[in-house]
Amino acid sequence: MFRMMKFFEYNWQVRDEWFNWCKQLTPEDLLKDRIGGVGSILYTLFHIIDVEYSWIRAILGEVDVVVQFNDYNTLEKVKSLSDTLRNEILKFIQSNPDESCSKLVSVSWDEATYTRGEILHHIVAHEIHHVGQLSVWARELELSPVSANFIGRDFSSI
Amino acid sequence: MFRMMKFFEYNWQVRDEWFNWCKQLTPEDLLKDRIGGVGSILYTLFHIIDVEYSWIRAILGEVDVVVQFNDYNTLEKVKSLSDTLRNEILKFIQSNPDESCSKLVSVSWDEATYTRGEILHHIVAHEIHHVGQLSVWARELELSPVSANFIGRDFSSI
Repeated sequence: MFRMMKFFEYNWQVRDEWFNWCKQLTPEDLLKDRIGGVGSILYTLFHIIDVEYSWIRAILGEVDVVVQFNDYNTLEKVKSLSDTLRNEILKFIQSNPDESCSKLVSVSWDEATYTRGEILHHIVAHEIHHVGQLSVWARELELSPVSANFIGRDFSSI
Repeated sequence: MFRMMKFFEYNWQVRDEWFNWCKQLTPEDLLKDRIGGVGSILYTLFHIIDVEYSWIRAILGEVDVVVQFNDYNTLEKVKSLSDTLRNEILKFIQSNPDESCSKLVSVSWDEATYTRGEILHHIVAHEIHHVGQLSVWARELELSPVSANFIGRDFSSI
């Protein structure tokens, strides 16, 4: 089956590999403003997490929790935020089969309504897109980026 | 439903927007070797098409058709290749529901076997990843990239 869970597992595994990859960088390199995307490497990871969580809470009908980058401006804090929110998101995904994807969702930051399915596709594509940007910045730092391959991964750990 | 077709439609629509975006560039800018990814903007688009087609042919049990970039080194030729192969891929996708995703596939360029589902996820993530790279190169050229948003798109045209 072609299921959303596989893409979430993929994104989370790749994200954790980027967290490990980031350990070789100085705080200055992590926070340096770069051309394209949303700016720095660390802010990109924070932004991916923030966007994923906001959309999932919107699907759940919960009020958006605004997280401020100033409170999470180190690699350890962003990784910890990722881990904490992932537990919550995992519970949602495991309890919401793909069949409920046509339900309509309202969000606080936009007047339109979207289907659950549309939002889940958006979350998946959003992270892969930003990770593509990280891969260019890695090469600019003369470092090999994390592999983006979907095939050949072992997803049993999640 | 969370279906592969939605992601193919998304990728194809975004790809066509990049083809239009590319019209503002000179052939030199399109072919210029850039840092990260597979090199130039035009070669990235060619590579996305080539990889998508090779995997789809592998799923179909067809021999891989090797396309050479030297034969498609203009924007018009790469766009035309994309249009031609898309027709073939569309026929495959429309006739293969998600339920057949667990079938095993052998490929000529690799000794491992993969499931159809794994390959389809791989194709989808592969294009989104490379498009993320294009978006950084666009900003380096001081141009706004094509939007990567999944939400808010009208997919009825495909």
